[in-house]
Amino acid sequence: KTEQAGQAWAGKEQREKASAFTKSKRGKKSCNPHFAPQISEEWSKGAFLIKPGDEDIHTANERRLKELIGAPAGKLHTGRSRNDQVVTDMKLWLRDAIAMLTDNSLQLISTMVERAAIEIDVLFPGYTHMQKAQPVRWSHWILSYAVALSRDVERLLEIKKRSNILPLGSGAIAGTPFDIDRELLRTELGFDSVSLNSMDATGQRDFVAEFLFWASLCLTHLSKMAEDLMLYSTKEYSFVTLADAYSTGSSLMPQKKNADSLELIRSKAGRVFGRCAGFMMTLKGLPSAYNKDLQEDKEAMFDCYDTVHAVLQVTTGVMSTLKINQSVMEAALNPDMLATDLAYYLVRKGVPFREAHGLSGKAVFAAESKNVSLNQLTEADLAAISPLFGSDVSSVWDYRSSVEQYSASGGTSKSSVSAQVEHLRNWLKTRSP
Amino acid sequence: KTEQAGQAWAGKEQREKASAFTKSKRGKKSCNPHFAPQISEEWSKGAFLIKPGDEDIHTANERRLKELIGAPAGKLHTGRSRNDQVVTDMKLWLRDAIAMLTDNSLQLISTMVERAAIEIDVLFPGYTHMQKAQPVRWSHWILSYAVALSRDVERLLEIKKRSNILPLGSGAIAGTPFDIDRELLRTELGFDSVSLNSMDATGQRDFVAEFLFWASLCLTHLSKMAEDLMLYSTKEYSFVTLADAYSTGSSLMPQKKNADSLELIRSKAGRVFGRCAGFMMTLKGLPSAYNKDLQEDKEAMFDCYDTVHAVLQVTTGVMSTLKINQSVMEAALNPDMLATDLAYYLVRKGVPFREAHGLSGKAVFAAESKNVSLNQLTEADLAAISPLFGSDVSSVWDYRSSVEQYSASGGTSKSSVSAQVEHLRNWLKTRSP
Amino acid sequence: KTEQAGQAWAGKEQREKASAFTKSKRGKKSCNPHFAPQISEEWSKGAFLIKPGDEDIHTANERRLKELIGAPAGKLHTGRSRNDQVVTDMKLWLRDAIAMLTDNSLQLISTMVERAAIEIDVLFPGYTHMQKAQPVRWSHWILSYAVALSRDVERLLEIKKRSNILPLGSGAIAGTPFDIDRELLRTELGFDSVSLNSMDATGQRDFVAEFLFWASLCLTHLSKMAEDLMLYSTKEYSFVTLADAYSTGSSLMPQKKNADSLELIRSKAGRVFGRCAGFMMTLKGLPSAYNKDLQEDKEAMFDCYDTVHAVLQVTTGVMSTLKINQSVMEAALNPDMLATDLAYYLVRKGVPFREAHGLSGKAVFAAESKNVSLNQLTEADLAAISPLFGSDVSSVWDYRSSVEQYSASGGTSKSSVSAQVEHLRNWLKTRSP
Amino acid sequence: KTEQAGQAWAGKEQREKASAFTKSKRGKKSCNPHFAPQISEEWSKGAFLIKPGDEDIHTANERRLKELIGAPAGKLHTGRSRNDQVVTDMKLWLRDAIAMLTDNSLQLISTMVERAAIEIDVLFPGYTHMQKAQPVRWSHWILSYAVALSRDVERLLEIKKRSNILPLGSGAIAGTPFDIDRELLRTELGFDSVSLNSMDATGQRDFVAEFLFWASLCLTHLSKMAEDLMLYSTKEYSFVTLADAYSTGSSLMPQKKNADSLELIRSKAGRVFGRCAGFMMTLKGLPSAYNKDLQEDKEAMFDCYDTVHAVLQVTTGVMSTLKINQSVMEAALNPDMLATDLAYYLVRKGVPFREAHGLSGKAVFAAESKNVSLNQLTEADLAAISPLFGSDVSSVWDYRSSVEQYSASGGTSKSSVSAQVEHLRNWLKTRSP
Repeated sequence: KTEQAGQAWAGKEQREKASAFTKSKRGKKSCNPHFAPQISEEWSKGAFLIKPGDEDIHTANERRLKELIGAPAGKLHTGRSRNDQVVTDMKLWLRDAIAMLTDNSLQLISTMVERAAIEIDVLFPGYTHMQKAQPVRWSHWILSYAVALSRDVERLLEIKKRSNILPLGSGAIAGTPFDIDRELLRTELGFDSVSLNSMDATGQRDFVAEFLFWASLCLTHLSKMAEDLMLYSTKEYSFVTLADAYSTGSSLMPQKKNADSLELIRSKAGRVFGRCAGFMMTLKGLPSAYNKDLQEDKEAMFDCYDTVHAVLQVTTGVMSTLKINQSVMEAALNPDMLATDLAYYLVRKGVPFREAHGLSGKAVFAAESKNVSLNQLTEADLAAISPLFGSDVSSVWDYRSSVEQYSASGGTSKSSVSAQVEHLRNWLKTRSP
Repeated sequence: KTEQAGQAWAGKEQREKASAFTKSKRGKKSCNPHFAPQISEEWSKGAFLIKPGDEDIHTANERRLKELIGAPAGKLHTGRSRNDQVVTDMKLWLRDAIAMLTDNSLQLISTMVERAAIEIDVLFPGYTHMQKAQPVRWSHWILSYAVALSRDVERLLEIKKRSNILPLGSGAIAGTPFDIDRELLRTELGFDSVSLNSMDATGQRDFVAEFLFWASLCLTHLSKMAEDLMLYSTKEYSFVTLADAYSTGSSLMPQKKNADSLELIRSKAGRVFGRCAGFMMTLKGLPSAYNKDLQEDKEAMFDCYDTVHAVLQVTTGVMSTLKINQSVMEAALNPDMLATDLAYYLVRKGVPFREAHGLSGKAVFAAESKNVSLNQLTEADLAAISPLFGSDVSSVWDYRSSVEQYSASGGTSKSSVSAQVEHLRNWLKTRSP
Repeated sequence: KTEQAGQAWAGKEQREKASAFTKSKRGKKSCNPHFAPQISEEWSKGAFLIKPGDEDIHTANERRLKELIGAPAGKLHTGRSRNDQVVTDMKLWLRDAIAMLTDNSLQLISTMVERAAIEIDVLFPGYTHMQKAQPVRWSHWILSYAVALSRDVERLLEIKKRSNILPLGSGAIAGTPFDIDRELLRTELGFDSVSLNSMDATGQRDFVAEFLFWASLCLTHLSKMAEDLMLYSTKEYSFVTLADAYSTGSSLMPQKKNADSLELIRSKAGRVFGRCAGFMMTLKGLPSAYNKDLQEDKEAMFDCYDTVHAVLQVTTGVMSTLKINQSVMEAALNPDMLATDLAYYLVRKGVPFREAHGLSGKAVFAAESKNVSLNQLTEADLAAISPLFGSDVSSVWDYRSSVEQYSASGGTSKSSVSAQVEHLRNWLKTRSP
Repeated sequence: KTEQAGQAWAGKEQREKASAFTKSKRGKKSCNPHFAPQISEEWSKGAFLIKPGDEDIHTANERRLKELIGAPAGKLHTGRSRNDQVVTDMKLWLRDAIAMLTDNSLQLISTMVERAAIEIDVLFPGYTHMQKAQPVRWSHWILSYAVALSRDVERLLEIKKRSNILPLGSGAIAGTPFDIDRELLRTELGFDSVSLNSMDATGQRDFVAEFLFWASLCLTHLSKMAEDLMLYSTKEYSFVTLADAYSTGSSLMPQKKNADSLELIRSKAGRVFGRCAGFMMTLKGLPSAYNKDLQEDKEAMFDCYDTVHAVLQVTTGVMSTLKINQSVMEAALNPDMLATDLAYYLVRKGVPFREAHGLSGKAVFAAESKNVSLNQLTEADLAAISPLFGSDVSSVWDYRSSVEQYSASGGTSKSSVSAQVEHLRNWLKTRSP
């Protein structure tokens, strides 16, 4: 909200110079030592009065300071340019934004991990190519997204690190000619280092481009998860039921309950990538140093933040309120999904996998021909395919022992999924503030 | 080339399974312990015969092994799926590709840094908004791109690190049911860790998406540099002359010498971003786990590699053969570009910057009115604007002393630019193999 | 294939000049009157020998002509430039490509319309928000895509019309200084008009951009259709069964039959849009007139053609071989999907729709509470909700009479769907060659 | 503005249903016959009171009508669904938006054509590859963009035609079950025809996608023009001077006058393409019929309209206030740019062009060797290159006669450029309301 207000305000000739400075997401005390505390307070109370002559937030603050302390306020801009101020502001803003998004992500991951821990005994069909593939734990599915999101967090923290370099003191292009202590500025503003080259510092927007792409990849993960959940919540699958708060009705069809929240999550990946594509196209056509085209950076950055911030919270809400229909999930498993296990049975009796795969395929075909399910083939049927099939083959037809086979790391056995939960719990601890 | 051959070959039903495994960019010995050395040798000699029944490289190798050792070859696929094999292959390929691109980038940066060291005394106009802004060192301009490229290298190394996680042992989706030592595989194949969740491991292509975006951002930097150089090489600027090897003629106009190499560099940023956009759109629409749509990953990854590999080398060629026209560069400086210095003159006499900026603006206006250049205003002209202007104002009109003012870190003074050179030389050492 | 060969050949300095001229998709006789018939024949037989000095196809032809007729061959380039030749070649190529894609599209639409005519009596659930909404005819679904594709055809024909303007005679930029009869050239080469401004004629690539976007939107339609079919072919829906020729197996799971063809159709929309995005980004950064960056146009145009050409044919194959499982489709209908009809029942008795919708919603809720389906509510149950519910309410619970209500144009009644079939059949006649 | 208000208002669960209906761009009387005139008036006066229970504009209007006329207001939604209402609203909105953008475009083209008519005698360097190529008329350059924009207008009118098909009466998916006269609705709402298939009608957003791409291609043209003008307005070129109203100053450098308006025009092509890319990505991932993801359509459509609307007006302002510096433009011509004319001189004496091009190239080389300009070569110098060079060669070195050679249609001679002006004036008449 405040961003939009700020933007609307700056919407004259100098729109792009709109400082993001005061738009702290986290209510931290503004750390710019040059602002009289009174002005800072006026901003936070919404009492700051913008006047017609104010070109942007920098000149507005200077004008206000002049009203308070007189002529020396004109010294505020010494050794500065809007070019280095605005990029400094954006980096301060992004630092807070990243902190918030990190929190949101960790919250979501934590919700998912704990849910996975609780529902670890639920089996359901794992799909590839949208076709039933093998029985897996429902928690295994949840954790597959938790792992993807943990990579997103790692990437976000790297962007923070790479962005947290102070451009202030670069002037417009050539640097600053006064004896300004950039190290002091750095310390006071909480940056990790100072920028190395003033032309690069004021003209580059890598940190924005990286952030926009980060948002795109993160939302691609959530869109994918929403797509899965939308399938699972159809009548056809009926694996999960969305909480009412995350569904809506139809103006025409009284019986409908639409998974609107999931559709919105899914749609936002497009929106955010559009921002990334648009800004990359703008960036791509530019020559060196600052060009006014760069003002497109702010709206893109703000919109992506707002979108991802909202989507992460909605997803957390969906995941913490979703109900699963365990019996339906397990009833959806079928013996065909154990055809690979049938091959493994032969492998364990010494048959090379390739051959075992072929023999199991024959069994699938035989069952289809007899119009029975795979586990209804008789011993004779199986023996006709391979003499190695014995009466112990019946042990194959158990979904729970099937999943327990996958006990190598990353697999879907209970021990392996528990290990994933533990791993992520530990990781969460290292990443939490 | 080999990739294309590989792809063409695999172009039947199982096209996407085409292994990138044997396509080592760097001629390193293939490290898969399961290949009989003989088959590996056949591949590297181009003597491996692909047969009609071979579905993909995995089945081709298994078939060949069977010809050599008989039935036990069928055990090769035990506990494996094409899903985990193909993603392992891609990661092996990308690891080599990243090593090559890192080398190419370091080579280019090194070329630029050493050129900056040599030509440090050359001044020319710095531009913002495509308008002459302030005098800067030519080396300052060069280094602004070297710094941007050093960020690209850092990002690339992070992708390498994040990608270098072994998916083998994930099967299609559920994991592997055999007592396979994933740690041993990891060590032998040189990965940093093993994947945490098998569904994520076979279905995610974050490493491809990240690489494609990396290529886009890197080429955006080079496109921007090419744009600058194209301007600088026009008759209007005449700052630089491209080597003949990087220019071409016209079929119609005998006098034309076109900067084709720069236009090609500039165009490729679009191409590469298109690959990124296309793959993101494909990824975005997918549900969980492996879907055949993912086969779009390989062509995009190969094309971006080929393109960036070529562009980095061409850019290195351009930068190492370019001639600069120092006298033209320095003649392009004009006293108006020192209007900020005129303001600084007053600042040093105690005038607040905002006011000094206004007074300097009046001087610019006065010079325009008299139709003289700024440094041709008389003492009387200046005194009429501010009594603080004294005879020592003449010291302002010296481009070399102007740039020397910018001695704060990142600025364009000789000491500061030298420090940038040193910093980058040291950084290059830490990043070189 | 021929394009790739052509490109590989042209892959030196003048790569982008590679003429598309000889790459006629349709085997029509080449219509350039300036080629000696012998050279034309050499090209079509693959007997034309490219020599090291040949910069591009234009100079190759001229060199060959010189070998045949001597010095006057040097007159071939009079009043020409590669800039106007190459754009003329591309437009000739695109004209043929569009003709082929129009044929492919009409073939697909025709297949769909005839299928819709045959299967007009099959009902199945119509979905919105991926949730069961109302009973519709299966043919209604088919035709929804046929209508979308017919718009694609209309758009394609407009691109053809707008592209078919002769640029030849524009030189590089200023026009042609010789007394060349552009009208004669236009007639001989089959263009509709001559270009109005030579700078625009040689520098614009609108026709390429439009074509790339056309391909993107067309494949978005087919991706959406593939997505539907993929759902319908899952075990969960089981509405359709893909022909074996359009499915493939799994290297791990013997029971799997994956809808690979559908996944490939779906993935290509991303690929093609990537080409569009990449070329737009390249175009966007350019100044006036010809720049070598434009050479990215050809590969993008060729790839999009190849892709859409293949996808349209595969889709035609899928749609003509698909089997539907009528009984499963109809069994998937449920009384809840008639809740709107229940409201309409009340509307017909004079209740305002808004109120009727509310009352029907109460009935849905009552049925859920009693854990029965909507049509199992007793007359007393319904009467408790509204006294207007009478014994004739039982007529509502008939899916066939439900769909027959929608007899307004565009609706899903038999008469309306038949009218759609007729409309499209007539349209196909007007668009067929 | 009204859109934003409308959106903000609708920002609850049903946000995407926000009707665009009342947001007429052109102040035309709202044509929906179902609205009591009083409600319509309340909206236009800003006096309509939105209440907490209002889900969207449709339910708000119905609620208000109920307040005015009682229960029968509940009949308003009969045979309707938000799905067909919202797409009808969007098409009504887009129709007005297209009319406005057509006006804006015609205004710009007209400004350009009239300027071209007035300044027809001004010559300046034509560029290809950003290098001086041949002398052309300044008006020729202007008209190259007017022609491109006239194609944009043609495309826009086609989108209008294709979009102007009435979806109302499609219900949510199955059509309307009541005896609604869709033809009457069509006539009253001013549509050209009624939609053919209800599933397609409510689920397709081709018209939005087409409009977004139209905006992208149109702004690519204007970005390219802005890029040219930015170059022409640099100190280095100094061909044009922007009016003060379209430039701004620098907070640091008093002498700077930045072409901000041009930079903003240039940047917006990226923004708008981003909207297109984002919406295409969202569209691409969807199955059949209405999905809530589609709500991304409105913000994208509104933003692209607002942006293009503003950019067209700013460009008209820039083009009507720009000052050209004729003497600088003509002084920028140099004899080398006549090297092609020198070749043509030989062609007219019977030398094949290819050979003449070579001989002219030798002359260029000879002049470079002697360090003189091409027209300073002596008769002897030229005779040494070809005996055909006579004393009449001096006639070549006249820029005005050079351009007069290009009198074929589309060329840069005065007659040809005048013909372009006339052609466009006539075209403008046919397209003006």
